[in-house]
Amino acid sequence: MTQVADPSLHRVVIVGGGFGGLYAAKSLRRSPVQVTLIDRRNFHLFQPLLYQVATGSLSPADISSPLRGILSDCKNTSVLMDEVIDIDPQQQIVKMQGQNIPYDSLIVATGVSHHYFGNDHWKTTAPGLKTIEDALEMRRRIFIAFESAEKELDPVKRQAWLTFVIVGGGPTGVELAGAIADLAFKTLKKDFRSINTAAAKILLLEGMDRLLPPYPSDLSEKAAVSLTKLGVTVRTQTLVTNIEDNIATVKQGDLIEQIPARTILWAAGIKASGMGKILADCTGVVLDRVGRVRVEPDLSIAGHPNIFVIGDLANFPHQGEKPLPGIAPVAVQEGKYLAKFITEQLRGNTLPPFQYEEVGNLAVIGQNAAVADLGFVKLSGFLAWFVWSFAHIYYLIEFDNKLVVMVQWGWSYFTRNRGARLITGESTLGRIETASNGDGRSPLERKSPVEV
Amino acid sequence: MTQVADPSLHRVVIVGGGFGGLYAAKSLRRSPVQVTLIDRRNFHLFQPLLYQVATGSLSPADISSPLRGILSDCKNTSVLMDEVIDIDPQQQIVKMQGQNIPYDSLIVATGVSHHYFGNDHWKTTAPGLKTIEDALEMRRRIFIAFESAEKELDPVKRQAWLTFVIVGGGPTGVELAGAIADLAFKTLKKDFRSINTAAAKILLLEGMDRLLPPYPSDLSEKAAVSLTKLGVTVRTQTLVTNIEDNIATVKQGDLIEQIPARTILWAAGIKASGMGKILADCTGVVLDRVGRVRVEPDLSIAGHPNIFVIGDLANFPHQGEKPLPGIAPVAVQEGKYLAKFITEQLRGNTLPPFQYEEVGNLAVIGQNAAVADLGFVKLSGFLAWFVWSFAHIYYLIEFDNKLVVMVQWGWSYFTRNRGARLITGESTLGRIETASNGDGRSPLERKSPVEV
Repeated sequence: MTQVADPSLHRVVIVGGGFGGLYAAKSLRRSPVQVTLIDRRNFHLFQPLLYQVATGSLSPADISSPLRGILSDCKNTSVLMDEVIDIDPQQQIVKMQGQNIPYDSLIVATGVSHHYFGNDHWKTTAPGLKTIEDALEMRRRIFIAFESAEKELDPVKRQAWLTFVIVGGGPTGVELAGAIADLAFKTLKKDFRSINTAAAKILLLEGMDRLLPPYPSDLSEKAAVSLTKLGVTVRTQTLVTNIEDNIATVKQGDLIEQIPARTILWAAGIKASGMGKILADCTGVVLDRVGRVRVEPDLSIAGHPNIFVIGDLANFPHQGEKPLPGIAPVAVQEGKYLAKFITEQLRGNTLPPFQYEEVGNLAVIGQNAAVADLGFVKLSGFLAWFVWSFAHIYYLIEFDNKLVVMVQWGWSYFTRNRGARLITGESTLGRIETASNGDGRSPLERKSPVEV
Repeated sequence: MTQVADPSLHRVVIVGGGFGGLYAAKSLRRSPVQVTLIDRRNFHLFQPLLYQVATGSLSPADISSPLRGILSDCKNTSVLMDEVIDIDPQQQIVKMQGQNIPYDSLIVATGVSHHYFGNDHWKTTAPGLKTIEDALEMRRRIFIAFESAEKELDPVKRQAWLTFVIVGGGPTGVELAGAIADLAFKTLKKDFRSINTAAAKILLLEGMDRLLPPYPSDLSEKAAVSLTKLGVTVRTQTLVTNIEDNIATVKQGDLIEQIPARTILWAAGIKASGMGKILADCTGVVLDRVGRVRVEPDLSIAGHPNIFVIGDLANFPHQGEKPLPGIAPVAVQEGKYLAKFITEQLRGNTLPPFQYEEVGNLAVIGQNAAVADLGFVKLSGFLAWFVWSFAHIYYLIEFDNKLVVMVQWGWSYFTRNRGARLITGESTLGRIETASNGDGRSPLERKSPVEV
C-alpha cells in the first residue's frame, strides 16, 4: 500500500505510542495533516493491567495491541518502529539512527520508567514494572519462588522463598500485593505437596503515612483494611534502606529490621524517560525533580510553540498546583486536546488552555475489591471492583476489541484459575536453588510431614 | 498442603510433562501408586499449536497449562520442576542437581528437539520450533522483517526482508507457510504505508518429492495446491545446502540457487532429547539414527522391565515396520497404556503388548483449509479445517478448559485480526537495520511512490 507524503500537508510527528501519543494520532485522523508515530516497540501497551501479566492472570498480548493494527484505518498516519536519539528544533527534525524525520508540530509522549532513588544496583534484585519484559520477569520470579520453596528442606530458607516484599504503596504496589495474596492463599493452595502456600508472607511497604497517598484518606484506609483481610501485611512510614543478599533492610521510625525475602518487587518512584533530557538539551526547557518536562498551558514547551509534551512525561501544573498524575485519562485527554489544538491552529483559530476533567482514581485489591474515587462519589469493595473492571474493559475494547480479556476475566473469576503462570525465558532453571540439606534426599522421602 | 510419602506404595517416576508423561500421571490417579512428575518447565506445552504463537495468533499461555494446575486433583502425584542429569538403574534412582528420587517404575517421556543434520551453526540464523522461547523468537523475526522492510529504501534489500524461507515440508512447515501467507497477504495488508506486504515471497522447501511425506499422496497434492493458492511457493526435491549472510543456498536436482532471505525458519529433522543418551549409557539400550530409544512391545527397554520410554523419544516399531510417528495421539495412548500396565502388574496381571489405534493425521493450511487423513476417510479444504479445529479444541479443553482459545479463534476467524503480533525480548531494536541510503532521508520524504 503506497502512500506518498504530500509536501503541502502540515507534518505532525508523535514520539511514543502510549495513551497520549495514540489518542493524539487517532484524533488527527480527519485533519489535513500527515502524521508519523514513532515508537521503539511495535505495540501499544495497556499499562494499567501490567500487574495482571506479572501475576499470571493475563498474557502480554491480552494487554497489548499492534500500533499498526490500531492505526491501520488512519490513512494519514505512518507508524515507524525506531528510537529517537535527538531533536533539532531549529531545522525541525527528529533524528533516529538511520534517518531523520521533519516535523511542523512535534508531540513527545514517551512516559516514565521507575526510579531507585540513587540505588540503581537494586534493579537486578528488585525489578520494577513498566514493560512487558518487566512483567514477565516478575512473573518468572514469583512462580520460581513457589517452585523453589517446594524443593527447599531448610525451613528458614523455605520461608525466605515464600516471602514477597513489595516496595511502594501506590496503585501498582497495592494491586501487586493483592494479586500475590490471591495467588498464595487461593489459586495455588491445592497445587503443592510439600509446602503450604498459605504460609507465604506478603509485605507491602509504603514510605508515607498511608497507602495510595494521592487518594482521599478514607479510601487509603479502606484499601489497607481490604489488603489486611486478604492476608497482606501493610506497613506504612516504612522505608527500604538496603537490598542485599536476598535481605531487605527496612526502617520504620527508629526500628530497623532485616527481612529475608527472595522476591522483592519495586513499585516506588518514577523517573522521566530519556526524551526529557534530550528536550532540555536542545530547547533549554526546565525539568522537574524527576526529569519531567514543565509545559505551558497549551502543553507546548516555553519558547517552542510547536513542540508539545503530554502524558506521564509532562509536568502540567493542575489548577496552578500539583502536576497532573501519571494516569491514562490525563494522557488521553491531553492527546485529544492537542489534536484539536493543531487542527484549529491550521484554521487560524486558537483554543483555550488545556483543562483536565477529573475522571477519578481507581485501584484494585485482589479479586473482588477495589477503591474508587470518582469525584462525585467514593466507592470501595465489590462495587468499586465492578467499576474498575468496566472502565478497563471499556478502554481495552475501544481500540482493539479485546473480547478475550473479558472472557479470561469472567472465566478466572468463577474458577479462580490463572492460566498464564508460566515460567519462561532462557535460563529458566538458573535461579532455582537446589535443596540445601546436601544429603540428596528428596522432600518426598521425608519421614514426617513438614508443616510450614 | 502436606502429603507424605507412603513407603509401602509403588513409586512411579515420570520424566517429562508432555502428552505422554501427563496422560500417564493422570491415568494413574486412582492407582495405589505414588507418582512424581519431573519437568524442567512448570507447564505442559500444547506443541501442535506452537506455530500459531510463532505467527502471532495465540499467546504462549493460550497453549500452555501449569502442570501443577492440571494435576492438582491427582492427590497421589507430586510435580517437581527440575532437570534429570542421570539415572542409576541398579539403585533405581533418578538423579538431579540437588536431589535423588527413587523409583520402582520409571517412565521417560522427554521428547525430541530439532536437528540441523550436522549444521548446528545454522541454528542462530534458522531457528526451529519446539519451545515457547523458539516460538517467540520466530514471532520476533517475522514481525521485525516487515518493520525493517518498511524502513528499507533499497528495493533488493527490501525484498530480502520480505522473503521467508521455510525449510521442511512436514506438518510444521506447511502450517508455518500457510500462516505467514495469511499474515502477508491478508492480516498486514492495510497496516503498512511504504511497502506492499503482498510482495512477500514465502518459499516452502521439502527434500522429498512431496509435502507431508507420511500422508497419503493425494493429500500431499491437495496441500500443495492449497498453499499455492494462498501464495506460497512450494518446492519439493529441494535441499538447503548452505545458510550464510542472509542467503539460503538451495539445490534442486542439478540446479543450485541462492535466495536472499532475512527470515529462514527451520521445520526439518528431529533429534532425540538428551535423556536418550543417558538411558543408553546406563542400560546399554539401542538408539536409532536420530537418537530415539528402541522399546519392547510393552514400551519397556530391553533388560530393564521397569524402565519405559514413550512419546516422541520412543522408537516403537509399528506393526513390525516403521516407528510410530511423533504425534500427540501416540504419546497419549502410550501414557494411558503404561498407567494400566503398571496398575495391572501390581495386581499380578499382565497386559498384551501396546497397540496403537490410528486416529489419523492432520495438518492445517491457512485460515480455512487443512488436510486430514482419518483412516476411514480423507478430507481436505474447509471440512478438514473444521475437523482440525474441533480436535485441537477438544484436547485443549479436556485438561485446561481453554475456552479462551476458542473465543480467540472465533474472533480472529471473522476479523482476520492477529492480536499477538508483538515484538518482545531484550534487544528488540537490535536486529532492525537502518535505512541503507545513508542520506538520512526517510521513506516519507521520497518524491515518488515506491511500488514494491
